[in-house]
Amino acid sequence: MTASDYATAHRARFVRELREFLRFPSISTLAAHRDDVHRTAQWLADHLQTIGAQVCQVIPTPGHPVVYAEFPASVPNAPTLLFYGHYDVQPVDPLDEWTSPPFEPTERDGVLFARGATDDKGQVFLVIKAIESWLQGAGTLPCTVKLLIEGEEEIGSPNLEGFLQTHRPQLACDGVLICDTAMFAPDVPSLVYGLRGLAYLELTVHGPNRDLHSGSFGGAVVNPANALARIIAALHDDAGNIAVPGFYDDVRPLDEQERALIASLPFDEEAFQRELGVPALGGEAGYSVLERLTVRPTLDVNGLWSGFTGEGAKTVLPASAHAKISMRLVPDQRADRIAQRVAEHIERIASRGVRVEVRMLHGADPVLVDRESLPMKAAARALEQTFGRPPVFQREGGSIPVVSHFQQMLGVPVVLMGFGLHSDGAHSPNEHFHLVNFYRGIEAVARFLEELQRGA
Amino acid sequence: MTASDYATAHRARFVRELREFLRFPSISTLAAHRDDVHRTAQWLADHLQTIGAQVCQVIPTPGHPVVYAEFPASVPNAPTLLFYGHYDVQPVDPLDEWTSPPFEPTERDGVLFARGATDDKGQVFLVIKAIESWLQGAGTLPCTVKLLIEGEEEIGSPNLEGFLQTHRPQLACDGVLICDTAMFAPDVPSLVYGLRGLAYLELTVHGPNRDLHSGSFGGAVVNPANALARIIAALHDDAGNIAVPGFYDDVRPLDEQERALIASLPFDEEAFQRELGVPALGGEAGYSVLERLTVRPTLDVNGLWSGFTGEGAKTVLPASAHAKISMRLVPDQRADRIAQRVAEHIERIASRGVRVEVRMLHGADPVLVDRESLPMKAAARALEQTFGRPPVFQREGGSIPVVSHFQQMLGVPVVLMGFGLHSDGAHSPNEHFHLVNFYRGIEAVARFLEELQRGA
Repeated sequence: MTASDYATAHRARFVRELREFLRFPSISTLAAHRDDVHRTAQWLADHLQTIGAQVCQVIPTPGHPVVYAEFPASVPNAPTLLFYGHYDVQPVDPLDEWTSPPFEPTERDGVLFARGATDDKGQVFLVIKAIESWLQGAGTLPCTVKLLIEGEEEIGSPNLEGFLQTHRPQLACDGVLICDTAMFAPDVPSLVYGLRGLAYLELTVHGPNRDLHSGSFGGAVVNPANALARIIAALHDDAGNIAVPGFYDDVRPLDEQERALIASLPFDEEAFQRELGVPALGGEAGYSVLERLTVRPTLDVNGLWSGFTGEGAKTVLPASAHAKISMRLVPDQRADRIAQRVAEHIERIASRGVRVEVRMLHGADPVLVDRESLPMKAAARALEQTFGRPPVFQREGGSIPVVSHFQQMLGVPVVLMGFGLHSDGAHSPNEHFHLVNFYRGIEAVARFLEELQRGA
Repeated sequence: MTASDYATAHRARFVRELREFLRFPSISTLAAHRDDVHRTAQWLADHLQTIGAQVCQVIPTPGHPVVYAEFPASVPNAPTLLFYGHYDVQPVDPLDEWTSPPFEPTERDGVLFARGATDDKGQVFLVIKAIESWLQGAGTLPCTVKLLIEGEEEIGSPNLEGFLQTHRPQLACDGVLICDTAMFAPDVPSLVYGLRGLAYLELTVHGPNRDLHSGSFGGAVVNPANALARIIAALHDDAGNIAVPGFYDDVRPLDEQERALIASLPFDEEAFQRELGVPALGGEAGYSVLERLTVRPTLDVNGLWSGFTGEGAKTVLPASAHAKISMRLVPDQRADRIAQRVAEHIERIASRGVRVEVRMLHGADPVLVDRESLPMKAAARALEQTFGRPPVFQREGGSIPVVSHFQQMLGVPVVLMGFGLHSDGAHSPNEHFHLVNFYRGIEAVARFLEELQRGA
């Protein structure tokens, strides 16, 4: 029996087991769910043991544990694949917007609704079921597979880099697989070859030593909230370019080949705008919407607060004003360097009547993976066999900090092959996963293991 | 016995009674204190009855009641003075910053600490004690005095205009006295002849129909928080002028005489800056700090909020961004007209990628009172007799909406004679009133009643 046949024959049970996995409220950011997170790790390890893991450990970290397992290949000299995923999930609020409870997985019209369905439990589980299908169906495994499934991805993986450093020898492999991205569109198999980086700053503008009455003091004291607005406004020019000196210095020019590749993707700018309900799109002149979303850097305010924010009118001249500002970065920008340049620029342009303070909260360097690596080629063949059409190659606008860690520490190719959709509601109410993509994912990963073993 | 002698002889009892008045937590904005507010009104009415009010009523309104009392003059053809004040107080938070509990009046070194000590119970009570001193000390009252003491000043006097309309005939008078302002500096008796007006707006910038992931959408969607910052920044030019077309059209030019009057006031710009702890002062070029604070209009952000404001880094591209923005106005600007102009300007300059919404929350027209009116002259003489130096005439930067109502509806001169200090902590923790100013206030008001009767 082939792995694919086995997977097809056991679909119903696979979905039942996935529902069991999804029932755990493994919300990593909430202290009240700490025990749930640990019970999820234990359930996962037990499950991996059941399907034949040779090594299987729940490894403690200063935060939530890592589940680590090894499934050795049945053939000699087979390549080794390291799979990375996460079993923790986002919080569920606003809870009242969920049609069915987030931790009571509910199927409606072939779609499974639950927190974590697409991000990332459903995608972790399809890899596990692909391994099981080889072992139980074909009785062999074409590659050695190592699984590293963490419980802190949704809180920024604070302990992962340390874990990788400590366990480096154990993690040796020929390639890394991550299933935590989205397909470009329904029925369009996709390989992500680029991710933007991130430099996330918190800016505080300090004014007078206390909140003042805007009547008694307004007009002669620089208002920190007005000063903050002027700083933020000055970070872009009127053409939508980021107006920080040197900001674009390290941006690798977009070559014609990649530009054509992006232009060939089935993207409808009007539909995109309509779906967001905005009167017009924005961004940098000279680039298509898709280019702006993926291969160009950005600067966005993520949060703003100052003064009185309650109901009605309070005439306060606030003592301080705050903003969270983040930049998405592209190769070869470096998060630290950009943060430094932006901070210096802010110092330079701030009103003399205030004092500014800039703190870097989070950074991730942008990533490009080799579209021509052996694992990428194997993945492309597996996707084509599964979907009946070759995959598109795309860059994504978001960041997955662990990817650059894998590249730097393990020095092997990374494959980003996801089966979710952008409309699956990751991080939002009514998160879901189309079961057809769960089934296709199992098949594609099963075929990928074989193609990887086959080599070029 | 003169009124002044009586007042001096009974100081200790007057302070005891004031402490009783201050014990009531008459916080008008908090529903939980509704009964306290009503009990305060009743206590006040009872007290006025005790000292000889001929008419004395607690008059209900749709909100908190008005205390109204009349003390007829003992002589024929005496002028009638209407006194306006308020018995409600601000909330007390942050409570932990108070050295002694806000409703347990505590005297330290001749200063009485309590919520309402200076704003406005202490100043209301000094007027009542001045009346008592005439009646009990001299056995006569040189003017008819009507008292209108409301319980909703700290929530914007929502029912006062209606009350004035309904009770207009009863309120007929020759002048209005308000003791709710501050002296220019300690030992500097002051008459306020101008107040700035206020136009208070809430601005909402609507972007996409939901919060978006800044990685997946950043770069092509206009960020409402960035757009809000650009709008706010564009409301001033680089010289600190308000850049709204027509904004200054109705500003009455400052004449040389008034300029000289302002320049003559004992104001130390360096000390002002040092006390606020700011690296530099700001504002409109071409005007002194004191001019900027009192005779020039302003535009200040009072509140800002958008997106993620918690601890750490969340990469949200917010669906909307909000600001509270208020303008202090000077004669002859009109609040409605300015609000309209600013709203239109915001519409005009906003990014095409967002939708803006502007709501007016509160408005008050600026006020100038006649420095040469008979009541003003009487007040000046009374202050000079009390303090041993003539008062300074000043404008204040804040707004007291009721003043323009009195001017328009009663058509009589208004006198703004206050005995507080800007450093008394009105609306802040550890609000206090210097008892020396309480005593001087009683004496000054007692003398004012006599000077008013004396006429020009």
